[in-house]
Amino acid sequence: MTGPAVAGDESMLGVCYYPEHWPESDWVDDARRMAELGIRYVRIGEFAWSRIEPERDCYDWGWLDRALQTLGAAGLKVVLGTPTATPPKWLVDEYPDILPVDSDGRLRRFGSRRHYCFSSPTYRMESLRIVTALAERYGRHAAVAGWQTDNEYGCHDTVLSFSDAACRAFRGFLKERYGTVEALNEAWGNLFWSMDYRRWDQIDLPNMTVTEANPSHVLDYRRFASEQIDRFNRSQIAVLRRHSPDRFITHNFMGFFLEFDHFRVGEPLDFAAWDSYPLGFTERSRLDDATKVRYAETGHPDIAAWNHDLYRAVGHGRFWVMEQQPGPVNWAAWNPSPAPGMVRLWTWEALAHGAEVVSYFRWRQAPFAQEHMHTGLHRPDGSLDVGGEEAARVGEELAGLELPDGDRASVALVFDYEACWICEIQPQGQDFDYLASVFQWYSALRRRGLDVDMVPPGAALDGYALVVAPTLPHVSAAASSAFAAYHGVTLFGPRSGSKTRSFRIPENLPPGRLADLIAIKVNRVASLRPGLDQPVAWGNRRFTARRWAEDLETDLQPIAQFETGRPALVAEGGRHYLACWPDDDLLEAVVDHLAAAAGLDAKPLPGDLRLRRRGTLQFAFNYGAEAVDVPAPDGADFRLGQRRLAGHDVAAWTLP
Amino acid sequence: MTGPAVAGDESMLGVCYYPEHWPESDWVDDARRMAELGIRYVRIGEFAWSRIEPERDCYDWGWLDRALQTLGAAGLKVVLGTPTATPPKWLVDEYPDILPVDSDGRLRRFGSRRHYCFSSPTYRMESLRIVTALAERYGRHAAVAGWQTDNEYGCHDTVLSFSDAACRAFRGFLKERYGTVEALNEAWGNLFWSMDYRRWDQIDLPNMTVTEANPSHVLDYRRFASEQIDRFNRSQIAVLRRHSPDRFITHNFMGFFLEFDHFRVGEPLDFAAWDSYPLGFTERSRLDDATKVRYAETGHPDIAAWNHDLYRAVGHGRFWVMEQQPGPVNWAAWNPSPAPGMVRLWTWEALAHGAEVVSYFRWRQAPFAQEHMHTGLHRPDGSLDVGGEEAARVGEELAGLELPDGDRASVALVFDYEACWICEIQPQGQDFDYLASVFQWYSALRRRGLDVDMVPPGAALDGYALVVAPTLPHVSAAASSAFAAYHGVTLFGPRSGSKTRSFRIPENLPPGRLADLIAIKVNRVASLRPGLDQPVAWGNRRFTARRWAEDLETDLQPIAQFETGRPALVAEGGRHYLACWPDDDLLEAVVDHLAAAAGLDAKPLPGDLRLRRRGTLQFAFNYGAEAVDVPAPDGADFRLGQRRLAGHDVAAWTLP
Amino acid sequence: MTGPAVAGDESMLGVCYYPEHWPESDWVDDARRMAELGIRYVRIGEFAWSRIEPERDCYDWGWLDRALQTLGAAGLKVVLGTPTATPPKWLVDEYPDILPVDSDGRLRRFGSRRHYCFSSPTYRMESLRIVTALAERYGRHAAVAGWQTDNEYGCHDTVLSFSDAACRAFRGFLKERYGTVEALNEAWGNLFWSMDYRRWDQIDLPNMTVTEANPSHVLDYRRFASEQIDRFNRSQIAVLRRHSPDRFITHNFMGFFLEFDHFRVGEPLDFAAWDSYPLGFTERSRLDDATKVRYAETGHPDIAAWNHDLYRAVGHGRFWVMEQQPGPVNWAAWNPSPAPGMVRLWTWEALAHGAEVVSYFRWRQAPFAQEHMHTGLHRPDGSLDVGGEEAARVGEELAGLELPDGDRASVALVFDYEACWICEIQPQGQDFDYLASVFQWYSALRRRGLDVDMVPPGAALDGYALVVAPTLPHVSAAASSAFAAYHGVTLFGPRSGSKTRSFRIPENLPPGRLADLIAIKVNRVASLRPGLDQPVAWGNRRFTARRWAEDLETDLQPIAQFETGRPALVAEGGRHYLACWPDDDLLEAVVDHLAAAAGLDAKPLPGDLRLRRRGTLQFAFNYGAEAVDVPAPDGADFRLGQRRLAGHDVAAWTLP
Repeated sequence: MTGPAVAGDESMLGVCYYPEHWPESDWVDDARRMAELGIRYVRIGEFAWSRIEPERDCYDWGWLDRALQTLGAAGLKVVLGTPTATPPKWLVDEYPDILPVDSDGRLRRFGSRRHYCFSSPTYRMESLRIVTALAERYGRHAAVAGWQTDNEYGCHDTVLSFSDAACRAFRGFLKERYGTVEALNEAWGNLFWSMDYRRWDQIDLPNMTVTEANPSHVLDYRRFASEQIDRFNRSQIAVLRRHSPDRFITHNFMGFFLEFDHFRVGEPLDFAAWDSYPLGFTERSRLDDATKVRYAETGHPDIAAWNHDLYRAVGHGRFWVMEQQPGPVNWAAWNPSPAPGMVRLWTWEALAHGAEVVSYFRWRQAPFAQEHMHTGLHRPDGSLDVGGEEAARVGEELAGLELPDGDRASVALVFDYEACWICEIQPQGQDFDYLASVFQWYSALRRRGLDVDMVPPGAALDGYALVVAPTLPHVSAAASSAFAAYHGVTLFGPRSGSKTRSFRIPENLPPGRLADLIAIKVNRVASLRPGLDQPVAWGNRRFTARRWAEDLETDLQPIAQFETGRPALVAEGGRHYLACWPDDDLLEAVVDHLAAAAGLDAKPLPGDLRLRRRGTLQFAFNYGAEAVDVPAPDGADFRLGQRRLAGHDVAAWTLP
Repeated sequence: MTGPAVAGDESMLGVCYYPEHWPESDWVDDARRMAELGIRYVRIGEFAWSRIEPERDCYDWGWLDRALQTLGAAGLKVVLGTPTATPPKWLVDEYPDILPVDSDGRLRRFGSRRHYCFSSPTYRMESLRIVTALAERYGRHAAVAGWQTDNEYGCHDTVLSFSDAACRAFRGFLKERYGTVEALNEAWGNLFWSMDYRRWDQIDLPNMTVTEANPSHVLDYRRFASEQIDRFNRSQIAVLRRHSPDRFITHNFMGFFLEFDHFRVGEPLDFAAWDSYPLGFTERSRLDDATKVRYAETGHPDIAAWNHDLYRAVGHGRFWVMEQQPGPVNWAAWNPSPAPGMVRLWTWEALAHGAEVVSYFRWRQAPFAQEHMHTGLHRPDGSLDVGGEEAARVGEELAGLELPDGDRASVALVFDYEACWICEIQPQGQDFDYLASVFQWYSALRRRGLDVDMVPPGAALDGYALVVAPTLPHVSAAASSAFAAYHGVTLFGPRSGSKTRSFRIPENLPPGRLADLIAIKVNRVASLRPGLDQPVAWGNRRFTARRWAEDLETDLQPIAQFETGRPALVAEGGRHYLACWPDDDLLEAVVDHLAAAAGLDAKPLPGDLRLRRRGTLQFAFNYGAEAVDVPAPDGADFRLGQRRLAGHDVAAWTLP
Repeated sequence: MTGPAVAGDESMLGVCYYPEHWPESDWVDDARRMAELGIRYVRIGEFAWSRIEPERDCYDWGWLDRALQTLGAAGLKVVLGTPTATPPKWLVDEYPDILPVDSDGRLRRFGSRRHYCFSSPTYRMESLRIVTALAERYGRHAAVAGWQTDNEYGCHDTVLSFSDAACRAFRGFLKERYGTVEALNEAWGNLFWSMDYRRWDQIDLPNMTVTEANPSHVLDYRRFASEQIDRFNRSQIAVLRRHSPDRFITHNFMGFFLEFDHFRVGEPLDFAAWDSYPLGFTERSRLDDATKVRYAETGHPDIAAWNHDLYRAVGHGRFWVMEQQPGPVNWAAWNPSPAPGMVRLWTWEALAHGAEVVSYFRWRQAPFAQEHMHTGLHRPDGSLDVGGEEAARVGEELAGLELPDGDRASVALVFDYEACWICEIQPQGQDFDYLASVFQWYSALRRRGLDVDMVPPGAALDGYALVVAPTLPHVSAAASSAFAAYHGVTLFGPRSGSKTRSFRIPENLPPGRLADLIAIKVNRVASLRPGLDQPVAWGNRRFTARRWAEDLETDLQPIAQFETGRPALVAEGGRHYLACWPDDDLLEAVVDHLAAAAGLDAKPLPGDLRLRRRGTLQFAFNYGAEAVDVPAPDGADFRLGQRRLAGHDVAAWTLP
């Protein structure tokens, strides 16, 4: 089911283009200038349903034929998007049941995008109809290099729909999963509060309840919703594979978005793609205000990287940036201008993390509609914008540099979408935020100069020097086996192993299956409001636990202890368990401890410097405004920049 | 209509138990260990409707028969809950009109609990049907000591329902109250904004209006909603009295919950019960963040006490704690672990305030469903948890100590549910919070070591040295008579007497009826945003009024004055009127002034110490972490603890 | 279509009165005391529909006949309100389609006021029916001086209704505006996200979309909603003009309310009126908390003035204050008492700004219904309240003082309702608040002692020394011509000229049409979160830009620069463009620079003093509590107060 590989240094830049937005007379010139800028891939078509099919069964292919012809003639390769994120008005009017329903039971309406419910059988059919039409026409077109399915699944809170169709499908999902209603009742503990069901058709979606619904019910609904996206996506892929052999298929995922299982949805893709907006993501993140100000014009140094590393895993080693922020955007609470040099820096950083292509969004800023304040490589009047200038510079630099293939990092960070849903459904402490936990670990590892691979639970772990599972509430049998088979240094964060697959407490208490790997039992957990800090002693040093603390029963000698004398960090063999949410100092001490145990060279980097190795090429990125020295060996062969690295600049040198 | 008394020192502990959650093979052992732990009462059954009647008219009594038999055989007494808080799915599907409707007009759904509307005639009938079935079967069962109606009326915002059934019932309520539409129009002032009605069926519930509804309309709706609960409750009681003679009937109210009139709902009960979660209530309270951190692991020292004193009044002198927090819970924003010793302290404090039984929630933590992070006396794996150990210690201590009966306190605090609704409906200043006001007074009195009785307005006041009405907007004729008949020291707080029964301004201006008791007129009120403080001079001392200040017209000589020279505190005979919301210092000065006038010995207690007398036994509770000396007379006979009282510890000595 | 002028010094006070709220026996005395207090105008009737027509077609005119007779007999002139803000219950029950629908699609209900949708054809008809009945009966009544249409259009979020009627009317509005669907698609850029329409009936209102709707769509909807009010208002006016010749017609607008175009709605009125609540508006404003505390008892010194100046423009030079705050109100989050003297100060300030009449709300505080905590000139028991005393003092002062006519101010501030909607629809930076921007400029000009006229874009500007357009995103052809024809000093703030009429970016980039007047191009904008300040250098001085910064391309020599060297303030001839949101210091520096260029005498005023000239009479108002010296020339002829002006006091002197 996978298509052919796509690589080659000459083809590493791309751009998103909307020929339908511009006079046809401009297309030839646009295409020529793209090629001149060093661009090779052009994504088009993903919102053009109403232009392709203005009324049911009346197709207008002419403009798209000509656009493909023009782009192809300029030597450009086209990524064609299926336009299913924007069903046209005539379709919505014909079949209102395709519209999604929100958690308050309100039907959402036409007038923006993503106005469809993944569970609508009507929409599933219509999606395949338009994809088939497109694939039949362009599946073997010479200019078409590959496909993007839909656009940014889940954007604008569209993973969850509470429609009747979703309810019906959910019952089917449960029947498949549990076989009998009795088994479901048992798994969910429905005898609690007389919530037992007797027939499948008694089961509702878990919204509009008087107080919280059963967390087991909610978790299965979240799994179901994720699976609906997977099925929707696979159904398009099946059509594309049939009619478009030898073309790649990808999807442009969003950054920092955890509402469905990207590993599952990414599985049938040839590679993953994601849309990278470092400033917008920093502004929208849950970082504190001071941090947001500090990185307002650069993006937080670990946000793009975190996503690169995640999507490389989602794409089984391969990923693109399908949309790269080129300047201010329109959709964050504040939309500042990137510091000069940052568009170039972001591009190089993506490549350093293994991106095969970095594609800018968009060629030219649209002067109309929802995104008209979103900049592009060009301004609406056609003049080259700052982002365009920086992209051109990368194009030139790329021409003189061969990028080696990437390989495995030294550290694996176990990342799990279900873990996120579990923590959302049952935070227990209001600030127990899964993403914050994972990001905190990731950032601490990066500040020590370590490269990180994100891995799903259950992935083989051999070859890594260190494995970190910041928190993994449900440890599946597969995950447990992978941990058991791994004999390097491992860290399990708090809450790991605390739930069964059905969102119950394990019979042997937490950490459930992990108790076979490290001899502890979690007797109690406490969530800590801000200010209710718990001192932690580690030898002569004093640290602080925040947000969460656990009471372990164990015979293991503690490495660090709460002031009560109870263990805060324990280890058995190389397997560590951290019984609290660490503050930054404690976190860095743990990282240093683990790195030392794993034989890793982990030294704090100066300023806001970050490193990333791609094969034999070592990159350095200065997110700060001040110049710093990069930690290159004496006499290093610099391929980009130099030892004294200016603010917002990039260096790369060859490793010996 | 009242049943027999229940007391006896050997019977002061209880537990909540869900036999249906555990293998039947465990029941015998559970029962035996309960008895060993000093437990005598076991509450069961209150959520078990679907187990008792899995389909309409198909009853499964077997398991409950056996559970009662097992518990009874171990010498335990059962409190049987009517299971009406959790109508099963088949019932909801059969009669969707039992579901409640929220203020936005949305039908709430099955999937948690309390999914019923008190005004649904269908549900009223179904409730009586299941209660009758239970009462007929177990009303005379030897193991059944008494009944709990439903569970936590009003929990999860379920007092107010905006269903069609509620609308119809509300019209009937109004007709009964006003007789004619013209009288209603007159009472509410409906000519304002052309809101007059001509027929009863024109009257809607006061939701979904364009701007605020008429406060008179809203207040009557709140009274109606409260009365619906009273009627629902009385209808169950009538059935239980008929079929279960000589058994007590109670209800487990919630702490700090003011949305219906507990005095009214408590009236037909043999005694009141309430559910005490000191940590959860502290976290959920409107206390400031620093205070929440300070008491995160102990609970605020006056929260449980406040409720004990209130529910003793609701139960006409008798109350139980039906659910006592045993460890971390699952439902607050943060759920820390109680400091070691606190479960014991809370238990003793309840007993000191006159509790007849303290019953822990729950025997064993459930590993599934909504409350699986709520601890119990045992962990889910059956091991004894910290709360269980502390309960066992209380059991032992109780065995060696005879508790005398309680008697009247020296101070009466006038507490009124309608006052709360009035302040909610019309805060006039955003932070004029009724509960905050009452709690502030209560806490100040307690910090002076004074015992407090809560009394409803209109209750006889003789025998009290001091009566405090923090704010009482509507002074009924009965309340007015009670105040007039009382000749001790009285304090009326701001807004007292400011409204008629119909939520109008009294014809003689505020304080309305109270003007007969103290010669003042309130010419104007001002609400004060934070920072707009009003200095108050009292002799040489300077204090601050916040939130609220009134302009009094009076010939009385002011005791304290605003900086404008206008009176802030006045008195006539022993009757005082405070014309502002005092800050803590002013409040304490007023308390000292009143205590001195009343001849009470009121000295500040050290640290976070609190006192409570039960008959001849004086208790002391150290909510702080540091040891303090208790104010016991020299040579006091300590029955628990000693003069130097450790943090989180309890002392008790016999009064001379 | 305009009626006769109304003026005369003896007639400058008024009051709002509700005879239906009081026993008829009190009316004669009330009227007599009004006259004694110096009151000449009495507004009545605007909420009395249910008293006039208790059931359909059953009119009860008697009470209103007698009220008019009583008031007229006392020499008072009546302003009669059309009662359409409060349709009675029988009407709502008969035609539920008159009710408005909120943006969540929920039907709002009867029970307060303004429960109607401006687009309901039924309600338009009913409105004309009741207005015709009133106008026929009282149109030529001797006591009736004029009419007020409805009451506070738009209050309680009632400008926007999402009803089916509104949807139908919106389609008609669009058809009229665009002619063809194709033209609409082109104007809105609907090809973006496949949002094209093919038929008018495909177009919905822009609510309930999955993410933001097309801003062009929303802006046209906002224009439509504004126009619906205009049409509603004009339809009442047409009836009144027909049946009530020689009477004035006005409407009482709200302060600080920008949701519809008041210039348009004000056009057919003889003059504008507005409702002035300085304390309530200060509390409800977006000013910071410290400022709210500072002015809690006086109102911010520029809030009432800002509205006076705006409504003078809305009323084409003429305005009343129809409701003047007399004491604490009931509707703000906190409702403090005005400092003694403020009711008098507010009254004089209104007159200084050109008010023809200041009418107090209300004669006597109602003891019932929603507003019973809203004070009046009298307390509910009939005693004169503080506001009444101060009004009486103004009445006496007015008797001894002839007020000259006002004339043009030196500074014009360009104010545009569409500009406000555009910034709301697309803030781009969360704190880009149009009102805050305009108010900031207005206040800075006033703190320099400058008088300001508010002018709509397109108004002739000759005669002004200085014109300030704080921000004007859409510069219409008319506005552009007016700016071009003006040769004084002009300041354009950021975002000016940034949009076309269709909410697109101009083809020549911002500032679009203004580029013909000042040779700049805005290449990029950045919105700045709090803390992301941009230093600005102006000669040796350093200032700060916040919230917003633009990158200008220009050959003009910058007056002030960002630290990047890019221009922050440029000028060509007298036309200035400010490329950022200035902090207070930078704003004042710009004001000083502009005033100097315009030859205006702009000196900082001491404390919280404000000035206003009415013809040859110069007024000064001390909003502070401390006495200050007013900047009167030596030997000035003081008609009110004196040079050393006490806190909260008023002075006036004759200009030479």
